Amino acid sequence: MNFKNYIREVPDFPSKGIVFKDITPLLEDPVAFQKAGEALLYFTDGLHIDKVVGIESRGFFFAPLLAARLQAGFIPARKPGKLPRQTRKQEYALEYGADTLEIHAESISPGDKVLVHDDVLATGGTARAICDLVRSLGGEVVQCNFLIELTFLNGSDKLPGIPYRSLIQY
Amino acid sequence: MNFKNYIREVPDFPSKGIVFKDITPLLEDPVAFQKAGEALLYFTDGLHIDKVVGIESRGFFFAPLLAARLQAGFIPARKPGKLPRQTRKQEYALEYGADTLEIHAESISPGDKVLVHDDVLATGGTARAICDLVRSLGGEVVQCNFLIELTFLNGSDKLPGIPYRSLIQY
Repeated sequence: MNFKNYIREVPDFPSKGIVFKDITPLLEDPVAFQKAGEALLYFTDGLHIDKVVGIESRGFFFAPLLAARLQAGFIPARKPGKLPRQTRKQEYALEYGADTLEIHAESISPGDKVLVHDDVLATGGTARAICDLVRSLGGEVVQCNFLIELTFLNGSDKLPGIPYRSLIQY
Repeated sequence: MNFKNYIREVPDFPSKGIVFKDITPLLEDPVAFQKAGEALLYFTDGLHIDKVVGIESRGFFFAPLLAARLQAGFIPARKPGKLPRQTRKQEYALEYGADTLEIHAESISPGDKVLVHDDVLATGGTARAICDLVRSLGGEVVQCNFLIELTFLNGSDKLPGIPYRSLIQY
């Protein structure tokens, strides 16, 4: 299946000069949605995974599904102020400025084998921040996987030593 | 399974006087997470469903999973400015003030049988707004389902004629 047929490129969104990859046509199509979920799951073949971390918000479209299929727990990585218990935070750089993500501190136990999932690997800053968070709590990131990779941004350079996979490359 | 064992009540979050129902312990537990997903799915037994609408952000934890299991499309209802194509918006009242949600206008076709899912049914304003949106595009809401229902807020009064189910009641 050519998944790119289900990704719409939207110029100048959310701001001028950016070509946004709109994944909603893929989500809306029952067959493409199923197949994409299965393909992401296939990336984890042979891995033991205890927890799946999904990154707010678009990482939530596939991460819980992967957790359910892997019989793993699901951990949401959220923007500040959304999680009610004690959290561990990580700031990360954006093209202009910085942002922060957090997870519940007790959601990762030392030795946990963790899959990190997000919709897009762009500059890699977000994924790296989450990997650092997981490791700071004693977890082991056994894979990062992404629906889309923008290879021209070299985001994988930010993930040295972390196995990563992506389903659709631009 | 007593799902309430996996819901943590957090007093005064996100603001004073509110007892927040933290569902993350349920998500983190592989068995409880699986069972909750299966129970929500069971609510739809015998229904034909074309599309599942999940409400940002916590509605995204189970809605895509339900869509995948139902072999339906998944439609995210999002906060303003996140969806790149033409949208249909709906404002709804909060305890103080108002908020807006939107979906892609072309994501619902006339006659579509739609399941609406959110994590919590509280005052019912959010779910009602989404049901109104779906109907304004010609879709039929065949069920609203929720992980949690705060029955003392009488949210179901806002959903007249719409079949609804909830897994955990307070």
